[in-house]
Amino acid sequence: GPIAEYLYTAKIYFVLVSMGIGAGLVAASLDLSVEWLSDIKFGYCSDGWYLTREMCCRLDEEGQRCGFREWSTALSFLPLIGSATSFLAFLAYALLALAFGVTAAYLVKRFAPHAAGSGVPEIKTVLSGVVIRGYLSSWAFIIKVIGLAFSVASGLNLGKEGPFVHLVSVLANMVATSFDDFRDNFNLMMEFVCVGTAAGVSVAFNAPIGGVLFAFEEAASYFPNRVLWRSFFASALAELTLTLMNPFFNGKAVMFEVNHSLEWFWFEMIPFFFTGALGGILGSIFIHYNVKWSKLRIHDPFLRRSPIIEVAGIVLVTVMLQYPIPFLRLTNTEILATLFSECNESGTLGEGGESLMCDSTRIDKLFFVLFYAVGAKLLLTILTFGARLPAGLFIPSMTIGACAGRIIGTITKMVAAAHPDWAIFSQCRSASVCVRPSIYALVGASSTLAGVTQVSVSLVVIMFELTGGLSHLLPTMFGILAAKMVCTLSGLEGIYDMHINIKRYPFLDSKHHVSHEVPARVIMRPPRVVIPEMGATLGHLQQLLHDYQYYGFPIVRREHDMILTGNIVRKELKAGIEKALRDPRVSYETMVSFKGEFDITDKDYIQRISANNEILLNFAGFRDRYLSQVSPETPLSDVYDCFSALGLRMCFVTRHGELLGLISKKDAIAYCDATGDIPRKFFR
Amino acid sequence: GPIAEYLYTAKIYFVLVSMGIGAGLVAASLDLSVEWLSDIKFGYCSDGWYLTREMCCRLDEEGQRCGFREWSTALSFLPLIGSATSFLAFLAYALLALAFGVTAAYLVKRFAPHAAGSGVPEIKTVLSGVVIRGYLSSWAFIIKVIGLAFSVASGLNLGKEGPFVHLVSVLANMVATSFDDFRDNFNLMMEFVCVGTAAGVSVAFNAPIGGVLFAFEEAASYFPNRVLWRSFFASALAELTLTLMNPFFNGKAVMFEVNHSLEWFWFEMIPFFFTGALGGILGSIFIHYNVKWSKLRIHDPFLRRSPIIEVAGIVLVTVMLQYPIPFLRLTNTEILATLFSECNESGTLGEGGESLMCDSTRIDKLFFVLFYAVGAKLLLTILTFGARLPAGLFIPSMTIGACAGRIIGTITKMVAAAHPDWAIFSQCRSASVCVRPSIYALVGASSTLAGVTQVSVSLVVIMFELTGGLSHLLPTMFGILAAKMVCTLSGLEGIYDMHINIKRYPFLDSKHHVSHEVPARVIMRPPRVVIPEMGATLGHLQQLLHDYQYYGFPIVRREHDMILTGNIVRKELKAGIEKALRDPRVSYETMVSFKGEFDITDKDYIQRISANNEILLNFAGFRDRYLSQVSPETPLSDVYDCFSALGLRMCFVTRHGELLGLISKKDAIAYCDATGDIPRKFFR
Repeated sequence: GPIAEYLYTAKIYFVLVSMGIGAGLVAASLDLSVEWLSDIKFGYCSDGWYLTREMCCRLDEEGQRCGFREWSTALSFLPLIGSATSFLAFLAYALLALAFGVTAAYLVKRFAPHAAGSGVPEIKTVLSGVVIRGYLSSWAFIIKVIGLAFSVASGLNLGKEGPFVHLVSVLANMVATSFDDFRDNFNLMMEFVCVGTAAGVSVAFNAPIGGVLFAFEEAASYFPNRVLWRSFFASALAELTLTLMNPFFNGKAVMFEVNHSLEWFWFEMIPFFFTGALGGILGSIFIHYNVKWSKLRIHDPFLRRSPIIEVAGIVLVTVMLQYPIPFLRLTNTEILATLFSECNESGTLGEGGESLMCDSTRIDKLFFVLFYAVGAKLLLTILTFGARLPAGLFIPSMTIGACAGRIIGTITKMVAAAHPDWAIFSQCRSASVCVRPSIYALVGASSTLAGVTQVSVSLVVIMFELTGGLSHLLPTMFGILAAKMVCTLSGLEGIYDMHINIKRYPFLDSKHHVSHEVPARVIMRPPRVVIPEMGATLGHLQQLLHDYQYYGFPIVRREHDMILTGNIVRKELKAGIEKALRDPRVSYETMVSFKGEFDITDKDYIQRISANNEILLNFAGFRDRYLSQVSPETPLSDVYDCFSALGLRMCFVTRHGELLGLISKKDAIAYCDATGDIPRKFFR
Repeated sequence: GPIAEYLYTAKIYFVLVSMGIGAGLVAASLDLSVEWLSDIKFGYCSDGWYLTREMCCRLDEEGQRCGFREWSTALSFLPLIGSATSFLAFLAYALLALAFGVTAAYLVKRFAPHAAGSGVPEIKTVLSGVVIRGYLSSWAFIIKVIGLAFSVASGLNLGKEGPFVHLVSVLANMVATSFDDFRDNFNLMMEFVCVGTAAGVSVAFNAPIGGVLFAFEEAASYFPNRVLWRSFFASALAELTLTLMNPFFNGKAVMFEVNHSLEWFWFEMIPFFFTGALGGILGSIFIHYNVKWSKLRIHDPFLRRSPIIEVAGIVLVTVMLQYPIPFLRLTNTEILATLFSECNESGTLGEGGESLMCDSTRIDKLFFVLFYAVGAKLLLTILTFGARLPAGLFIPSMTIGACAGRIIGTITKMVAAAHPDWAIFSQCRSASVCVRPSIYALVGASSTLAGVTQVSVSLVVIMFELTGGLSHLLPTMFGILAAKMVCTLSGLEGIYDMHINIKRYPFLDSKHHVSHEVPARVIMRPPRVVIPEMGATLGHLQQLLHDYQYYGFPIVRREHDMILTGNIVRKELKAGIEKALRDPRVSYETMVSFKGEFDITDKDYIQRISANNEILLNFAGFRDRYLSQVSPETPLSDVYDCFSALGLRMCFVTRHGELLGLISKKDAIAYCDATGDIPRKFFR
């Protein structure tokens, strides 16, 4: 009735609202903990140890005096000479970074291995209909939140944005499973997980629309229309909650405010294109070596057994490579903010960055730092992504790309300044500023991320929600197009798909280009076990369940004619047997029938066969309602469509009603992986 | 091979690029013609009759003198007194408006009836897999472009945005059909039409992302992942082309530049909510009466036969109702720009609007004009949408909503100014400006449009791409949520779905809530005609094609056992017969077999039966590769999924291989329409 319908809608909105608010709260508290933990590596607040550097310096009315004391200052009471105190500060930094990294890795190893990584490959797999046990547990959630704070604060080249996808998905799952009727509705649960993915990205980047598009473009295999509004609703609520908590304390709706009137000229499309292509190359290099390293991590016995030592090693390498360059001591977010800012408006650039970026007399130093940053961060991100602590790769890849883009931008600027008479720069003559390297940093950041993840549209949207400006939409798009071309040539899949392959998750990629020419019979298996429609005993069925671990069992009219009449899923068969055994009249010798209507009444369920007073159980109601049959000549691509579009897990091959074989989703995936029939799918 | 693959990709991009550039060019030239035609109603440019008012006033260096001469001035040589000249100006305006409207209606009636309306209901139907003959023809395109210029310029309450969807879709179809291998690929063609829809909305609103989302949310039944990038690519190119043509001559990326720092306070969420609810109410009123009027248009013999007289009548009513109020002589776009602007920054408001909106001493006049505008425009839009000339409803509904929103905003502002001591307004005290009616206009515009079209997410995105500001994202969302609630209570479907129903298009709505409890056998029809696998003659098949207009014919093993072995589509059967008759050895007596592999060689195609030198044709290769079978007990909802997710048009009901009946997509739609099983689907 209508009341039940309203109640149902109300419950759905309850889940969406709790999830949205929850996501905002988690994001805000995580942001705050990360900030405090990151600051403590450099010093502490003398007005209260629990204050972050920013809060500490805010307490003051004039905003001049700042209660934050660096370790080198705090330790100045020790009788040490100058260089020793700065070494002591380094030591405090390094030891705390190490402690944070090891803590994160320990928590993950000890309590919840599923909390490792970004979680995006797993979410993709889950959303394709595969259950990964424990992945959506509250335990994974708790460990991931705590572990993430530590791993981000350790200063490693990792981001908190990817893991947010996992966190909010678990949150969605936790809230939704509290309703009994939602828990049993597998498709609805998947939809909520999908909404969680969208809200996770949204809250991570302050990008509600980009998040929704990311869920559609990259994560979901099945995205019905209604999920669009639900995702958007939850994402906007999450964003609203986060804004109200205001963790950035800058009162802005965007992470990096880019000057809206940033102008560019048409001739710049050429360097934009190169920046995009460079982003694609960097992305491909990242994928290639990260996959190699990730495989080694699985196959090498030492690495496999010692995730904590591995993380400790990566932390040390990171500190060694990054600490010597003051610019690289900044967090990746700060580095991005610096690179996305223009020079002429001083004050907007982050500390340590301004003098470096804007001093045109020290251009050689700038180039050194940027080149060094690209190399070091590329290496470190390759090492870090996939390590067994919570770690995403959005922000690190963007940082690499932004540095590379800034290099190209600065070179273009120098060329344009040196040769104003060249015809190509004619547009520049009337303009006050000709080339703005910050736009190149934006283009570089998005195209490198596009190269790594092979996501495109949602990235463009995220980038412009991040920066709040529509004016650089075209350069960004153009850059991503160039990156797409490079990736097509490289022939690599996106990093998430690569990690799905490495971890051997049974993921059915709807983007697989499945041949029209291969018929279904090529991959079908002959039916190993069938249930006759009439005549099986309860004991026989129990034995079947015990002997075979199949997901479902085909039902045939008679075992010798093999005419397929139905299908029963393992879970349902088990439920049927359990229900039956609760009845005292039923024994293992009782016969079971699978004939008749799906909606059988309790009266029909147990039929008394009058002759010898035996009873007959009717299990017809436990059968699968939709029986997916294909003929042996059906092209594999159509079978695939059944699996991906209809969400089936099993398909029966019949000819003239006779069961010839079965195709499981897993078989289809295995065949596709084996034949390697993966086209250059990025440039679609 | 890889070269063929690259060639294929290149061809796809060729279509996308031509379509994108084409869309931009069409939009730019249409904008220019509409501007010129609209200006000619008021006067002409003395520096050159071909110049628009804006161009005419630009020619001057100081920007003061303007060569544009109003009709009243131009006619001042006539010996008339003052009031007569202004009457003459009115007469010129009215007659030209009438001429434009009648021209548009005549062109449509005479040359291309499919050019009428917005085309969105038809596109939705086409994208659900239904062919509407002539709808995607180049003839419809040409007439729609010309007719649209005239109908918009006539000053009727209609928009050019909806028709753009149709125009660019036809463009996509035209370019794509120029490749032979694309033309036969039905799914690919649908994807291109879908891309066209996205690019159409994009170019109409300067909103590339909103356009893509609109295509996904409202238009497409089938939206594979790859369409996302393609749509975005084409949309961005279209937008780029339009920007380069720069028809607005303001060099801005957005249609209505809204001040980015527009602030709002939390207490305003209450009036925002009311604004949204009012938008929902206005939308529901619009749908209710427009549907009544549209049905009358079909059933009333006079209206049905006289579309041109109807249009002429609407033009006259429009002129009568709008001309007396100077504010309403502005185009809807100008009215929107005025309503979306704030008062304190003078100069941004359009002519005729500024003094009205911002003079606080004449608030009674403001209210009169706004109330009058809501009423008049609501009535006029109800009359206009569905009339047989090219006409969209985006901009008119937004105008109605913006007026209503501005009313609520102004009232809120007055209350806040009168009672600054109320606790609810406490946030206001420190602010320089408390309530900004322009935000209410934005919220009202988007929620009314949401109420009319029942689209949500894409509207939010379009609104913020239109205005270029993220700051009013939350108010807009909140307003749309309120509108959604009202629409849920009203129980109406969106206007496009309503018009699909009125026009009786066989549209399968994926949002239909199909019962799990109805089994497939309820709606199946017994097979009226089957083809035996062996033994039919060519003449027999030819006769079948002639006697039955079915889309496809089932193939059975033997006519008396009815074991289903395949299916052949009408088109393929026809192709097979035609191919066969080209062979001199073949006669109408020749036997046809449907047995064997799909990929038969030419050698196997004609088999010589050695005994009496007769020949046997093998039509196996013409069969459908995927045979969709369901059992009679399959729930209707699963059958629906097959139609919508797999894009099938026909489904066979079998038991134990025996064909019991057929379900066509049309049957399923008819059943669903008849049982009225449409839930309150908007508030999903």
